[in-house]
Amino acid sequence: ELKKLLDDFHHADIAEILDELNLEEAVYIIKLLDSETTSDILMELDEDNREKVLRNLSSKEIAEEIEELDTDDAADIISELSEERQQEVISHIEDEEHKAEIRELLAYDEDTAGGLMAKELVKVYETWTVAGCMRRIRGQAKEVTRVHSIYVVNKKNKLVGRLSLKDLIVAKSDQKIAEIYIPSVDYVNVHDDVEDVARVMAKYDLEAIPVVDANMILLGRITIDDIVDVMKEEAEKDYQLAAGITADVEADDTIWELTKARLPWLLIGMFGGIGAASIINGFSDAMLKFPALLMFIPLIQATAGNVGVQSSAIIVQGLANDSIDGSILKRLLKEFLLGLVNGLAIAFIVLIISHFVFQTTYLESLTICVALISVIIMAALVGTFIPIFLDKRGIDAAVATGPFITTSNDVFGILMYFLIAKAILGF
Amino acid sequence: ELKKLLDDFHHADIAEILDELNLEEAVYIIKLLDSETTSDILMELDEDNREKVLRNLSSKEIAEEIEELDTDDAADIISELSEERQQEVISHIEDEEHKAEIRELLAYDEDTAGGLMAKELVKVYETWTVAGCMRRIRGQAKEVTRVHSIYVVNKKNKLVGRLSLKDLIVAKSDQKIAEIYIPSVDYVNVHDDVEDVARVMAKYDLEAIPVVDANMILLGRITIDDIVDVMKEEAEKDYQLAAGITADVEADDTIWELTKARLPWLLIGMFGGIGAASIINGFSDAMLKFPALLMFIPLIQATAGNVGVQSSAIIVQGLANDSIDGSILKRLLKEFLLGLVNGLAIAFIVLIISHFVFQTTYLESLTICVALISVIIMAALVGTFIPIFLDKRGIDAAVATGPFITTSNDVFGILMYFLIAKAILGF
Ligand SMILES: [Mg+2]
Ligand SMILES: [Mg+2]
Ligand SMILES: [Mg+2]
Ligand SMILES: [Mg+2]
Ligand SMILES: [Mg+2]
Ligand SMILES: [Mg+2]
Ligand SMILES: [Mg+2]
Ligand SMILES: [Mg+2]
Ligand SMILES: [Mg+2]
Ligand SMILES: [Mg+2]
Ligand SMILES: [Mg+2]
Ligand SMILES: [Mg+2]
Ligand SMILES: [Mg+2]
Repeated sequence: ELKKLLDDFHHADIAEILDELNLEEAVYIIKLLDSETTSDILMELDEDNREKVLRNLSSKEIAEEIEELDTDDAADIISELSEERQQEVISHIEDEEHKAEIRELLAYDEDTAGGLMAKELVKVYETWTVAGCMRRIRGQAKEVTRVHSIYVVNKKNKLVGRLSLKDLIVAKSDQKIAEIYIPSVDYVNVHDDVEDVARVMAKYDLEAIPVVDANMILLGRITIDDIVDVMKEEAEKDYQLAAGITADVEADDTIWELTKARLPWLLIGMFGGIGAASIINGFSDAMLKFPALLMFIPLIQATAGNVGVQSSAIIVQGLANDSIDGSILKRLLKEFLLGLVNGLAIAFIVLIISHFVFQTTYLESLTICVALISVIIMAALVGTFIPIFLDKRGIDAAVATGPFITTSNDVFGILMYFLIAKAILGF
Repeated sequence: ELKKLLDDFHHADIAEILDELNLEEAVYIIKLLDSETTSDILMELDEDNREKVLRNLSSKEIAEEIEELDTDDAADIISELSEERQQEVISHIEDEEHKAEIRELLAYDEDTAGGLMAKELVKVYETWTVAGCMRRIRGQAKEVTRVHSIYVVNKKNKLVGRLSLKDLIVAKSDQKIAEIYIPSVDYVNVHDDVEDVARVMAKYDLEAIPVVDANMILLGRITIDDIVDVMKEEAEKDYQLAAGITADVEADDTIWELTKARLPWLLIGMFGGIGAASIINGFSDAMLKFPALLMFIPLIQATAGNVGVQSSAIIVQGLANDSIDGSILKRLLKEFLLGLVNGLAIAFIVLIISHFVFQTTYLESLTICVALISVIIMAALVGTFIPIFLDKRGIDAAVATGPFITTSNDVFGILMYFLIAKAILGF
């Protein structure tokens, strides 16, 4: 009866239910149902739950699930296993073609087009007729869940164009494919970064894109549903990085998992705070002479942090959209001017408040204003420069925002504040 | 020759070029080329550039472009015009059906399924035969760029199921649609939030989803390319909100636009800093007695900010994924424990450093540690509570992270620090 009950649900919904059950129950259900159903469920489980379930299945059982999956999903699941287990599972796959295709996919880096593509696609030769094509497509299409485009290749398997099912239906049955195909076709190279693939598919509104090698040989196909997942993961990762969370965690993870993801940045922030303490300590004589200066430390620090995060977020986003080009110097000059405008506005308000509310002296007020403007400009420059610098070095710029920028600006900002105070007040 | 040259490019690429040209040149090209090409280009322009271009076209010229667009894009462009201009443009549309459909779409809120759907879709009645169906689809499909699913409706236009083109090709031509259609079909209500639509389409890997009203009458269709755009925009907006940027800006916007987007949060941060200054000022006598306490203000403030941002980011993301349920109290208890664990770890390290490096007294060290732990717990609770609270009130929780949480925690944290110092050191 459980079988019948689950039959009414979509595999993504069953996976959600299984994610809530305990391991024993989940494994029981996976073993109970046939692999035609359970392979899709497995694919939709949370990664850590899937890992646990797989540990409780034999290599042969895993191979049975794998037989039912598309090559891209099959390769993803196998790549989560240990090296040794991978070989065992693959040896149990009976379909020789499926086996070879999975082996091929396992060789690609998971962040590239090759790591995302599936071997399942519908392909026709330019020499075929429309009628012959329809016949053969009926055969190929059974293997391919969604057809999207039909790719047209020449004798050497080089991608030369595409066709939609619609074009085929509308065409006369004795026409040659060569007469009706669309020769302009978007494609990506098998080694392209997945984020670039996502950008191309979003820009040209594609539901699928063919993947080729350097010789234009058609190797596979990437579909939009997998790109949607990539986009979601990327966005969540960048958001978490900006918030100082180092691993992919969710609100429902354990306290231990959350601590592992959160403590590293808190520690870095702590060392920043200790650094700031040392700076204040170093200027402690001056502090006793001008206690009013102390009051404004939080203001300096908060402003430096906010400006830095704003600047870096805009650059990180621009880099992700591939829209940051032109000279760095020009960009820094613009940030300088932007910092100057914002700094003047804020310094003016603070000047009035500090004078009337806190009765600071003329020189103290000057110190605070000059420091605020300088710190805002410095923070804007740091927030702009560091992500661009990291990106040029091939490091993901998304790490360089949030707590990273805040912490460096905290220390720089406070040091700058005291140096400016020293120059103006002369202690 | 310009026409020929541009013919080789995809409209998304031409739009990118036009975005770089000055207004006069862009308008010249839009007027030069026929609306079959330029309507798609218009659609892909940056919103502010499109606005400027449209202001330089007559209502009749805009109507010509609109005639070429799918209903969803047509409605989007018209809705960007002034109320008065909208009516003018609509009155110039010659195709009466297109006109009526656009009018219908303009009535829906842009953040709902109705605001995103197009009227273009392929629909068949369950009573038709496969052969008859193919004939009629050849007609309908010419209007519809991509077929995706074929929706099956009954006589009353109620959605009863779907078919893929593939199913149709594979079926025998004298079969009835009623015999071969798939009765389980995902759909969304016309008033559903677009973020919910995106979640459903991502979960079930859909390329298109039909939109119905409360009586299951088929109203339109949403395609994944538009959902991809929504997802990108949503992710960028949330990222910018978390960084304290209030409007949708890009690195290449003018200094004035960037200032408008950035200054508001800097001002709020500034008032937070002034608040902190007042608190320090209020405790100035104590400060002179225990100057060591001052050194640790930046540490307290930075830690409060970092913890708050981490907690709020996880909750905001959980809310966006619809995975925050269960009791708030339990969630706050978990954050309390998490804060305690992180707080103890950090306080322990700070204790050692403050004792050996800064030679703080026993009571001062105790003050700093107790304050750190309390501030971390407080920040974690505030960061968790505020987004949930806003969400329950129907306010977008995404505003409640970044500078918002940092600023409130700065003020709370420093106040707490001094109150704890007062309790322990007794000034
Ligand atoms: Mg099974
Ligand atoms: Mg893969
Ligand atoms: Mg697009
Ligand atoms: Mg589009
Ligand atoms: Mg796939
Ligand atoms: Mg990224
Ligand atoms: Mg035109
Ligand atoms: Mg719309
Ligand atoms: Mg999906
Ligand atoms: Mg999927
Ligand atoms: Mg559309
Ligand atoms: Mg949102
Ligand atoms: Mg801060």
